Amino acid sequence: MSSSIDTRPVILTGDRTTGPLHLGHYAGSLKSRVALQRSHRQFLLLADTQALTDNAHDPEKVRRNVLEVAFDYLAVGIDPLETTICLQSALPALAELTLLYLNFVTVSRLERNPTIKTEIQLRGFERDVPAGFLCYPVAQAADITAFRATVVPVGEDQAPLIEQTNEIVRRLNRQVGRDILVEAEAMIPAVGRLPGVDGKAKMSKSQGNAISLSASPDEITDAVRRMYTDPTHLRASDPGKIEGNVVFTYLDAFCDDGQLLEDLKERYRRGGLGDITVKRHLEDILQALLAPIRERRARYAAEPGYVLDILREGTLKARERTEATLAELRAALGLFTLT
Amino acid sequence: MSSSIDTRPVILTGDRTTGPLHLGHYAGSLKSRVALQRSHRQFLLLADTQALTDNAHDPEKVRRNVLEVAFDYLAVGIDPLETTICLQSALPALAELTLLYLNFVTVSRLERNPTIKTEIQLRGFERDVPAGFLCYPVAQAADITAFRATVVPVGEDQAPLIEQTNEIVRRLNRQVGRDILVEAEAMIPAVGRLPGVDGKAKMSKSQGNAISLSASPDEITDAVRRMYTDPTHLRASDPGKIEGNVVFTYLDAFCDDGQLLEDLKERYRRGGLGDITVKRHLEDILQALLAPIRERRARYAAEPGYVLDILREGTLKARERTEATLAELRAALGLFTLT
Repeated sequence: MSSSIDTRPVILTGDRTTGPLHLGHYAGSLKSRVALQRSHRQFLLLADTQALTDNAHDPEKVRRNVLEVAFDYLAVGIDPLETTICLQSALPALAELTLLYLNFVTVSRLERNPTIKTEIQLRGFERDVPAGFLCYPVAQAADITAFRATVVPVGEDQAPLIEQTNEIVRRLNRQVGRDILVEAEAMIPAVGRLPGVDGKAKMSKSQGNAISLSASPDEITDAVRRMYTDPTHLRASDPGKIEGNVVFTYLDAFCDDGQLLEDLKERYRRGGLGDITVKRHLEDILQALLAPIRERRARYAAEPGYVLDILREGTLKARERTEATLAELRAALGLFTLT
Repeated sequence: MSSSIDTRPVILTGDRTTGPLHLGHYAGSLKSRVALQRSHRQFLLLADTQALTDNAHDPEKVRRNVLEVAFDYLAVGIDPLETTICLQSALPALAELTLLYLNFVTVSRLERNPTIKTEIQLRGFERDVPAGFLCYPVAQAADITAFRATVVPVGEDQAPLIEQTNEIVRRLNRQVGRDILVEAEAMIPAVGRLPGVDGKAKMSKSQGNAISLSASPDEITDAVRRMYTDPTHLRASDPGKIEGNVVFTYLDAFCDDGQLLEDLKERYRRGGLGDITVKRHLEDILQALLAPIRERRARYAAEPGYVLDILREGTLKARERTEATLAELRAALGLFTLT
């Protein structure tokens, strides 16, 4: 490392440690993280604390998946020399900032947050929303600002969380009279969310419609075989629909040969191209994409001690950075300091 | 210190650092803290983090009063060799436990807490309750359990906060399958709350009806002179009322000579005892009580470096204790640990 100041934009992102990652994560975020890790200063948070906000009954699941997600990161090509991978619950400054920020946000503001409203509905919490869940946008604001992140990749449905963060940033900057915290920008991915192999909107392990990053060749074959296409496209000679056809959605996401893909689409629309042929194309692509990931993942999984060392080192770096933000903010607010 | 295990009951108590303490604090809590500090293992929390839950707009006030309250503690006879005095915001484990516990409490449970309901009304928050304020019973549960306190002195109106704490304790003990956290008992003081000198229910600096622990002899004289008695007791020869008569309420709290006090009450009720005479008794008692406190307080205030050292040492001890609770609980829940 040279001693010159790092002026790259700072990305904070990460994953709740509730399960190993899958192809949907790869298309939606992992791929771009690998692409951005040199041009950006990138921090990846293994978000075990946040995972507990709706998994408090099953902390064992949250624990178990910390290393699983770390294996996934390294397997897809996250380079720990470029990207800092760290464990959320090992960064006390995040909890301290969360508690501080909670005083600057009203309960009714949290209840109005559209992302939270939707998520509360999805989880069927109704009146029994855990307080930690209602407050998690504030915890997220603590994460983002603690790392002084300027860019936060989020799905479109999560953009209100960045707005909530920036409200807190402005509120605190106004109070201390200078820009001590940095506003962050949402980076909405160009690629939409990858549907499940069954055509449902979301790929998810619990729905059984996901292709995991460690999928075996047979599992990939099987998943592609089961993949939802155009149900009205009964014979190869029939004209077929591209829209809502999962095989083509996946080809859009993973086929690098644009000319070939346009050609396939045209032939499929016109009639004369069977599902089996298109699926074979997709399967070849997915097998080629996942083979090296699966192999690297197996190598890391065989050496958990090495991966733990990476997490320890990253967490130490993250701790320095987040503690510095907390100390600066406390001083600017004029809070008491013992040291 | 001997190396034998300390089996004394553990008290956690403290004060929000929003202003210097006054005679009401002395009668309601400080006096009994001094009396209990040998028979109990006592921790006093300078609650600056909690003070911010309704003073986020004025952190400077919260900071300034950390040392003021510490001076008050030492002035009344809290012995730092017996009692651990520590700074809440310098104990990150409290924030971490708060965040963890928030996942085990529903928003509606917090909204139903009678203490919080009343306090929200008192503060005129209405719909704009800061999230930190709604969550402060959970932060208090974190404080109590982190110190493994078994006894928590609280006013009667705050007993629901201990109930909330014990709910969290039972919830977590059930989840980990053993009594990892300790239930606490509320210790309701025998002496009721001391009214203000104007007869209003609460002595409070902001109401201008308080006698501060650093009050000068003249301020004490003046406060007793202004003190609310029986407004129908116009001449010394008239019969007077004891009930609601602030002078007698204070005598009940501070006069150690029970016989003399009964005698005064009888003569006052019967008629023939003037307010001036009773007030002179009370003034003598208060002057005698406050003179050594005022002097000791001035000595400590002249040596803030010494007091800071006491806080540093106490906070270090408290940090060890609270970190140990957090680590144990994390391990019992099966959360990921990097070290």
